[in-house]
Amino acid sequence: MYEAHFQTFEDADRGVALSARLAAFREELARRHLTGFVIPRADQQQNEYVPPSEERLAWLTGFTGSAGLAAVLPDQAAIFVDGRYTLQVRDQVDPALFEPRHVTDQPLERWVAENLPKGAVLGYDPWLHTVEGVARLQEAADKAGGSLQPLADNPLDAVWTDQPPPPIAPVVPHELAYAGRSAAEKRQELGAKLAADGLDAAVLTLPDSIAWLLNIRGGDVPHTPLPLSFAVLHRDGTVDLFIERLKLAPGLERHFGNGVAVHAPAELGAALDRLGESKARVLADPASAPAWVFDRLTRAGSAPVRGEDPCSLPKACKNPVEIAGTRNAHRRDGAAVVRFLCWLDTEAPKGAVTELEAAERLHGCRRENALFRDLSFDTIAGAGPNGAIVHYRSTEKTNRKLAPGEIFLLDSGAQYLDGTTDITRTMIVGRVPDGPLGAEMRDRFTRVLKGHIAVATARFPKGTSGSQLDTLARAALWQAGLDYDHGTGHGVGSYLGVHEGPQRISKLPNRVGLEPGMIVSNEPGYYKTGAYGIRIENLVVVTAIDVPGAEREMRGFETLTLAPIDRRLIEPSLLTDGERAWLDAYHARVSDELTQLVDTATAQWLAEATRPIG
Amino acid sequence: MYEAHFQTFEDADRGVALSARLAAFREELARRHLTGFVIPRADQQQNEYVPPSEERLAWLTGFTGSAGLAAVLPDQAAIFVDGRYTLQVRDQVDPALFEPRHVTDQPLERWVAENLPKGAVLGYDPWLHTVEGVARLQEAADKAGGSLQPLADNPLDAVWTDQPPPPIAPVVPHELAYAGRSAAEKRQELGAKLAADGLDAAVLTLPDSIAWLLNIRGGDVPHTPLPLSFAVLHRDGTVDLFIERLKLAPGLERHFGNGVAVHAPAELGAALDRLGESKARVLADPASAPAWVFDRLTRAGSAPVRGEDPCSLPKACKNPVEIAGTRNAHRRDGAAVVRFLCWLDTEAPKGAVTELEAAERLHGCRRENALFRDLSFDTIAGAGPNGAIVHYRSTEKTNRKLAPGEIFLLDSGAQYLDGTTDITRTMIVGRVPDGPLGAEMRDRFTRVLKGHIAVATARFPKGTSGSQLDTLARAALWQAGLDYDHGTGHGVGSYLGVHEGPQRISKLPNRVGLEPGMIVSNEPGYYKTGAYGIRIENLVVVTAIDVPGAEREMRGFETLTLAPIDRRLIEPSLLTDGERAWLDAYHARVSDELTQLVDTATAQWLAEATRPIG
Repeated sequence: MYEAHFQTFEDADRGVALSARLAAFREELARRHLTGFVIPRADQQQNEYVPPSEERLAWLTGFTGSAGLAAVLPDQAAIFVDGRYTLQVRDQVDPALFEPRHVTDQPLERWVAENLPKGAVLGYDPWLHTVEGVARLQEAADKAGGSLQPLADNPLDAVWTDQPPPPIAPVVPHELAYAGRSAAEKRQELGAKLAADGLDAAVLTLPDSIAWLLNIRGGDVPHTPLPLSFAVLHRDGTVDLFIERLKLAPGLERHFGNGVAVHAPAELGAALDRLGESKARVLADPASAPAWVFDRLTRAGSAPVRGEDPCSLPKACKNPVEIAGTRNAHRRDGAAVVRFLCWLDTEAPKGAVTELEAAERLHGCRRENALFRDLSFDTIAGAGPNGAIVHYRSTEKTNRKLAPGEIFLLDSGAQYLDGTTDITRTMIVGRVPDGPLGAEMRDRFTRVLKGHIAVATARFPKGTSGSQLDTLARAALWQAGLDYDHGTGHGVGSYLGVHEGPQRISKLPNRVGLEPGMIVSNEPGYYKTGAYGIRIENLVVVTAIDVPGAEREMRGFETLTLAPIDRRLIEPSLLTDGERAWLDAYHARVSDELTQLVDTATAQWLAEATRPIG
Repeated sequence: MYEAHFQTFEDADRGVALSARLAAFREELARRHLTGFVIPRADQQQNEYVPPSEERLAWLTGFTGSAGLAAVLPDQAAIFVDGRYTLQVRDQVDPALFEPRHVTDQPLERWVAENLPKGAVLGYDPWLHTVEGVARLQEAADKAGGSLQPLADNPLDAVWTDQPPPPIAPVVPHELAYAGRSAAEKRQELGAKLAADGLDAAVLTLPDSIAWLLNIRGGDVPHTPLPLSFAVLHRDGTVDLFIERLKLAPGLERHFGNGVAVHAPAELGAALDRLGESKARVLADPASAPAWVFDRLTRAGSAPVRGEDPCSLPKACKNPVEIAGTRNAHRRDGAAVVRFLCWLDTEAPKGAVTELEAAERLHGCRRENALFRDLSFDTIAGAGPNGAIVHYRSTEKTNRKLAPGEIFLLDSGAQYLDGTTDITRTMIVGRVPDGPLGAEMRDRFTRVLKGHIAVATARFPKGTSGSQLDTLARAALWQAGLDYDHGTGHGVGSYLGVHEGPQRISKLPNRVGLEPGMIVSNEPGYYKTGAYGIRIENLVVVTAIDVPGAEREMRGFETLTLAPIDRRLIEPSLLTDGERAWLDAYHARVSDELTQLVDTATAQWLAEATRPIG
């Protein structure tokens, strides 16, 4: 996950600067006769990674996490973050300026309902909130007896004097050899589907949907090769694309062909006005489109039809070319990881390797690979207690040496032209300690592994959602009174976002059936605060499976990720025969597929690391 | 489940009558200048069991299932039912009159969107739909370019000349010895909670909520001891109860005390008007309250605050007196079931016992029990292929003899003053057949049992919902490509509804955490069409459990139901050691608790039926 400029509040200069920023912002609000304002971490496209020009929350509060929001009133302000960031927010944000709150236990809506004065006006930027988000805010403002006001321009930008300009990374074609289907074919199919649903057009506001639909890639945000843009897909399969023209690589318009018209971003409003005035039935996704889009269409005369982004599901179900690509990418990525693990296993026990060095070394192994373009997120390298901080990012300040007898958690991934990878391995540095600590480590690691295997070997009928599988990953931990506070799996793109929907494996309700071609991560974990963190993550792809005698159409998973799971941390007596068989078969496959791709020394190490558990 | 007057469409007279009814209804619609009308199976209180006066769907279409709805247009009509009723609807409804459709695959909303003519007016009775239901209908009417119109009186009632009067069963106190907490205490607590949430009042439209809150019971609908009524709970803990006064048993107003004012049902509208005019903040549940309530409050000047019925959660979490009561009720009920099973095991192999005789015999065994008041639903007794029809109800016409070598599924329950029971047992009549059929029966039964045990032995952290546990019940079936098309568990009341919310174990999303005191059923199954049905159902109560070394607050289940599970249908080699241990321990407990409650012959049978599986 991206951390643009990680600085902690303990830097005195920064504390002063932040206090001044908040004061200036409050003056600006007063000038505009606003009582308060809500600052989400979101950009206009609800991106996970946002460009520096959109880092308003970080600029104002100091908090650089990937999710959160703040609210400012004349005499109070608060910042709302989830469980991943409760520690980080205390490090980065001055509680005298912003009261830190848990986003679900002490939500913004309650804070607004309790603190917004009667008759007060709470402002928001309609580009940065979804309609669903605005509806929740509206309810809170109603409760407080105040009102909510969308603003034409963001008052924070008025005081952010050195706000960077929007990014202008080049946009290039994503070749058919990787995409598998032409953009024209996708446009026609989706246009026909709109027509069949009685719709005239769909507003596309998710840039990864647009990148998928038009077979283009860009670089406007870190780690995800997408160009910021908006688009309107019409029922005849043509597309109006709203994008900074100077970003387009030479020849790109030829790649687009006749069916795609390029317009300046500022022209989106007029295009929505025309749709609204012609009473067109226009689809927009209330979960991701800015409220601005809904407001504009409604004002122009035709409230949008609410529905899911039409690219979401077809993008998630990878075609055979994309699946073949990701298998290749995972093989090369696995070879890089194995070369790294062999090095680590030799060097780390000497006690001199740090988290940052380990991450950089792995980056180096990957960079040598064909088709490598970027990491798919900032590597999480957590030694000992740092591993217990779920969304830990090592910094010069927190950087820790890998100590013998400690656990090291490493979560990393890469963007290759033919696929996106994401893998977590948890290793013991040297030998597992003797005595109760070592036994506990093995017990926890093995329970996490049992959860991982339960997901990997799951068979389930067509229509089953990832929510229904989540408990398989947790049951072995639950039996011991343990759990982990993150999802079990997220969707993964094809040389696109390392997090994509609509499917996921999570205890949160999700009704999207897991369909063949969907890629998801399988990553149960366990975290002991102040001691160590464990996570075992492979990517898997959903497949149709043939079960003899089956009465239902069945689905299962094929594991894509290839790298050994640390045998030293496994307590074999906790595994069932079936679990042991899975582990040995997986390791045999890792050995078969990767040995030929690595040097002799690494191959020797790999042979040992993939021995049957016995 | 209740089937008031089961008649099949094959009766020629009935076919003629139904055709005439539909014609008369269409004339009535035309007189009112309505294009069409929607007829849900619901009554005003979204009851599962509705009184005969509310059986509009059955009267018009012939369909007597517990869920469904019909829509009538000038030249078309359709009936929408779920998977449980796809066979029954074909038996009962003339497809020339009503096209049968699957309620989720071919929903009403799509049918309306496709068939309602542009400019047409679709009527509905706002007492019989929730606001959420109306919103979906509105969207469909919008799509068709038609409009939706709430009606002050139901046009069907105008042509239903022999519509029965509303029920007037007596309302009696539910004694503290069973209720565990006084109504005054409950009212005060819930009133204080409304006040803390900034609310002035709550409209209660679910009669089981009102029965729970006021510690009263009635008999207006079959099998559920509730009186039909509406109520308004105020923040000071007082209640306005809207109920037919002649239903109140002598002395009931003394039982109510000062805090409860009784009004005629027709006065509800005026009371809502007063609340609306005073701008009171009134809670109403959009999932269950009639749209009429929302419309009335909104028109009077104060749109309701949408939220869950405030009785729902406290009613679900049974207090220690209620739990002690249900344990007692289950012990007596178990003794009745065991007496019946012993008789069945002796008589059925002779080949002369029918489904209806078996059900009646079991009813007789229960009737002898102390505190017995009613069955909690119509017994499901399915021999051989009839067992594969999930919501089968045996009739004179379908009644089947229990044949040796066939499987018999029996789902039944009772209402005792101290608790509500619901148990399913699946037995082999005589001996399991030799060869592949017998092996298949054992395989299926054992997989269902494995799912049942996985739920019974689950441990899970506080906050875990039943949706998260559902897969535990299915995984063993999924491994063989099998599944079942119903939920795994429903909430159960305390001498109230055999189905109650808000918790359930289901693959459908549900975010209600399972909290101590909640009672749910644990009932996985397997159904082979044309051959047999298997279901193993116990009720369980959620408990706080102490897991050594636990890092989370953990929950588990205590099984309440006591009766042997047919050992002859178990394939021991498919069970793990842990599963075998659970089964033997359960049987030992059944034997310990019930032997003293049955006669010597039954005790001998029970000893054999509860022997360790070995």
